[in-house]
Amino acid sequence: MSKVRVHNLNVSLDGFSAGGTVTYDAPIGEAARLFDHFDGRVIWGVDAIAEPVRADHVFTSAWSQGIGVEIMGRRKFGPQTGPWADDGWRGWWGDEPPFRTPVVVLTHHERPPIEFANGTVFHFVDAPAPQALEYARGLAGGDVRLGGGPTSVREFLHADLVDFMHLVVVPVVIGSGVSIWDSCAELQDRFDVESVTTGSGLIHQFWNRKR
Amino acid sequence: MSKVRVHNLNVSLDGFSAGGTVTYDAPIGEAARLFDHFDGRVIWGVDAIAEPVRADHVFTSAWSQGIGVEIMGRRKFGPQTGPWADDGWRGWWGDEPPFRTPVVVLTHHERPPIEFANGTVFHFVDAPAPQALEYARGLAGGDVRLGGGPTSVREFLHADLVDFMHLVVVPVVIGSGVSIWDSCAELQDRFDVESVTTGSGLIHQFWNRKR
Repeated sequence: MSKVRVHNLNVSLDGFSAGGTVTYDAPIGEAARLFDHFDGRVIWGVDAIAEPVRADHVFTSAWSQGIGVEIMGRRKFGPQTGPWADDGWRGWWGDEPPFRTPVVVLTHHERPPIEFANGTVFHFVDAPAPQALEYARGLAGGDVRLGGGPTSVREFLHADLVDFMHLVVVPVVIGSGVSIWDSCAELQDRFDVESVTTGSGLIHQFWNRKR
Repeated sequence: MSKVRVHNLNVSLDGFSAGGTVTYDAPIGEAARLFDHFDGRVIWGVDAIAEPVRADHVFTSAWSQGIGVEIMGRRKFGPQTGPWADDGWRGWWGDEPPFRTPVVVLTHHERPPIEFANGTVFHFVDAPAPQALEYARGLAGGDVRLGGGPTSVREFLHADLVDFMHLVVVPVVIGSGVSIWDSCAELQDRFDVESVTTGSGLIHQFWNRKR
């Protein structure tokens, strides 16, 4: 069975992975500082960057390895709520979404898929975690990346559907937002956790589900 | 210009990366303990392993990312010396060499290429480092992986042709063999070096050539 993997999920020192409010101007709300360290350039591998290849870059580039499909929460796709308006919105990423695979967007309001020339296809699915995962696996082989935000990651954690998480503890304090740890007490009992520090001040954590 | 990258080059605490003598039975000579930590299974990415995905695995899997061709020393291909005998030798790896790209084998004795069904093709080239690199770049796009052993890595370092090195300092003492550091005094002046420790006891070093 293909694995369900979380990659590069940023977590503040106080446990927040996203802002509480998302708008067109502030896609990550008050949590934008979580992404200050990330230049977005290494996501397809260590070859594609002009900057030095440091440990942070190598860890980041595992994001795409062996991934066939992503599942994301609706707010990662856009700031809208409720039924979809005919507003031409095609996601935050312009004409070149970085995914290049099918992407399942979790929403209570289904709609036809949106397709891009680079292989990215957004499918809008109203289903609980186990059924959404089954749907995603039907779209493509390879592993399933659970792309966040934290609310959808927590839903999959509660359903015990996550095999691997790469969390990045960022040395900032946000104060409010959406916590990755909310109602996750004793989560660590189900995982082996390795922490690695790098010269940048980031702490990378590798959570592998116990066998 | 594509980069020249060294990946997963193991170095003992006393600086050795290969044994001084290589035979059919002992491909790494007295340095075999350098490879005790490596199970060979993650080389194509984090998805293809049964074991937990730990930091060591992620670093190891950068080996293949964006690589179009490898250059290796003759002893990495086989233990023979002098002119090639008609002995049917096709490398250490059986029918499935892990490279899946063209590979330039540095040798003073040229011979026709050896081709495998999985995309690996060994080319035997008698040329100093700059010309061998030019030949390799003519075979495929993408970055060039300098596959070792230490003698050929040192040759490329002396010619200032290496852009990136991922060295793995293994906590073992070998006592003799081929040193990676021999006649490399002041090498560090040309590189930025980051060291990262992991839970396994390995120290990963990322050497990026200064710009």
